[in-house]
Amino acid sequence: MTLPLTLGDTFKQAKYRTTGNGPRDVNVLLQSLQHVDGDTPSEMYGRGEIIEKFERKLAEMLGKESAVFFPSGTMAQQIALRIWSDRKDSKAVAYHPLCHLEIHEQDGLKELHHLEPVLLGTQDRLITLDDVKKMPANVACLLLELPQREIGGELPEYTELEQISAYCREQGIALHLDGARLFEILPYYGKQASEVCGLFDSVYVSFYKGIGGIAGAMLLGDADLAEQSKVWKRRHGGDLISLYPYILSSEYYMDLRLPKMERYYEQAKQLAALYNTCSGMRTRPEIPVSNMFHLHLNIPMSVAESVIAEVQEESGIALAAYLKETSETTCATEIAIGDCYEDVPQEQLKAAIKLLNERLNS
Amino acid sequence: MTLPLTLGDTFKQAKYRTTGNGPRDVNVLLQSLQHVDGDTPSEMYGRGEIIEKFERKLAEMLGKESAVFFPSGTMAQQIALRIWSDRKDSKAVAYHPLCHLEIHEQDGLKELHHLEPVLLGTQDRLITLDDVKKMPANVACLLLELPQREIGGELPEYTELEQISAYCREQGIALHLDGARLFEILPYYGKQASEVCGLFDSVYVSFYKGIGGIAGAMLLGDADLAEQSKVWKRRHGGDLISLYPYILSSEYYMDLRLPKMERYYEQAKQLAALYNTCSGMRTRPEIPVSNMFHLHLNIPMSVAESVIAEVQEESGIALAAYLKETSETTCATEIAIGDCYEDVPQEQLKAAIKLLNERLNS
Repeated sequence: MTLPLTLGDTFKQAKYRTTGNGPRDVNVLLQSLQHVDGDTPSEMYGRGEIIEKFERKLAEMLGKESAVFFPSGTMAQQIALRIWSDRKDSKAVAYHPLCHLEIHEQDGLKELHHLEPVLLGTQDRLITLDDVKKMPANVACLLLELPQREIGGELPEYTELEQISAYCREQGIALHLDGARLFEILPYYGKQASEVCGLFDSVYVSFYKGIGGIAGAMLLGDADLAEQSKVWKRRHGGDLISLYPYILSSEYYMDLRLPKMERYYEQAKQLAALYNTCSGMRTRPEIPVSNMFHLHLNIPMSVAESVIAEVQEESGIALAAYLKETSETTCATEIAIGDCYEDVPQEQLKAAIKLLNERLNS
Repeated sequence: MTLPLTLGDTFKQAKYRTTGNGPRDVNVLLQSLQHVDGDTPSEMYGRGEIIEKFERKLAEMLGKESAVFFPSGTMAQQIALRIWSDRKDSKAVAYHPLCHLEIHEQDGLKELHHLEPVLLGTQDRLITLDDVKKMPANVACLLLELPQREIGGELPEYTELEQISAYCREQGIALHLDGARLFEILPYYGKQASEVCGLFDSVYVSFYKGIGGIAGAMLLGDADLAEQSKVWKRRHGGDLISLYPYILSSEYYMDLRLPKMERYYEQAKQLAALYNTCSGMRTRPEIPVSNMFHLHLNIPMSVAESVIAEVQEESGIALAAYLKETSETTCATEIAIGDCYEDVPQEQLKAAIKLLNERLNS
């Protein structure tokens, strides 16, 4: 007896992928090194051309005084909040209940830095200006994540963002941007990165989300914040003698994919529209505002898994690599458009989604 | 007017190097990837064949139940001490006054983990059994660094190490090995790695010292310690989605250089003996016990710098990349034998050291 192929297997084996930039394998590194001169010296503990040049490039692009490369966003953001907390002499920081620091970091912020997060708004919606105005007076720093990943990548209207920024400045509250997917939202806002970052006092960006690098992050802000963050980077164990494998690949994929963010955004809207023609399926946001959205299915996860696996195998189109149970009768997956989407033949894609709709509703 | 070349310049430009494994440049990464299949999938957040296979290999080699790969030793060791502190419910940990955690980590252990180090012994000598016996009773964990890098890489006699280990077990004090240079000391002790590690409850090893990888470390101990260390790794921001650039290069250079540690040790003794024939120079240890030693010069640093630069330029033999001032009239440098030494023509080396001796004592 042959076991039926899993969702993950059929995703990997399908000829075309609707989501992502392709497999996360060693080729990602090899490709990024193809045109690098092997004699290029490593940076040493954060110093040297290879890291400083990239930091200057990002500082300029994002309109901030200084930038510091970090191995991870987890490290960079805890440190940013710690610095703001120390500056304002208050342990209170505010963020969304589904903030990365709250749900994905084993409480590093609390366990290592003893900060005390105030959760703003509720799990199912964005933080609003009204939430911000009701914050306790002792909040040192407010972290906003744009787009709010755990709710499908929703975004506030730009005017509301401006109002939140103005309010925080008025109140002396530092405003930090979790910009893991900053470049992905610029086409929707119709803004330059530096314009969005201008609303914030410190900014973190990631190089392995839409940009599709291997790992790595940048923290940006004033020169003092940058210097202090290097001390904390050393304390966290992130000031490696050599970070160049991440730096080189980050820069390579940034140059390659920043010009494609507009296209990913348009393709996300196109794909979401296809899913929204189906019964029992809906996307969040209904009309994407970046390259990402969540696909919600009114179907128990075990049923959806086997049906999507079948459709992937039969159609040769990979739709979902995994599902997450959201209740006994519903499930969801995350779609993030990258390089793979443009290779997908549109007629085959439409046929695959039609087949999915039929099988799930038969 | 042409400025005279600096010590660093002449070191880099010399045809032969007495110390190290060669330049830290991108070729180090490229060489390690030459025979890697590009389709090899990345591990994901600490899971997957690429990381687990290497962890199992080290656990077996060092005779420990479990191993966890870390981006840095700074992160791995703070976490090891934190886990022992929590287990024993005491914030006191003991180590040498020149321990890496005390002088090179911006006090991460104190600032992030609030541990309270007890400094054992004095800066100019090794920790002894006697020091250990006089430790406060509340010490949760004793860290020993083998070899003690900041004093030239000295080592206790193996019998004393066994006595310290037995005493700690008797007293219920955890014994942790800072084994950044563990593989480098095995030829002197005439022991297998697992024998030395058997004296310790937890062990850290580095992949970019004698092994000459890019960065990376392994923490080893019981299975519970390993599991807890993964939680702390996430909190520190070290649980990257992909650490494979470090893992692949660590494994490559480990396989390449572990068999050469005996040779490096013999060559270190040979080179130290040459320096010890000179006037105003001495090595510490006088007879090396690993691939490393410190060279101490009874000469003001500025004088030594220009003389060594001259000798390096004239002889084509790189002796020292940098000097450190140890007083107004003395300075020192660290020598660590690696792959480069065996290419150095012995007669040219002897002539260079003779020239150095003449110039420094003229």
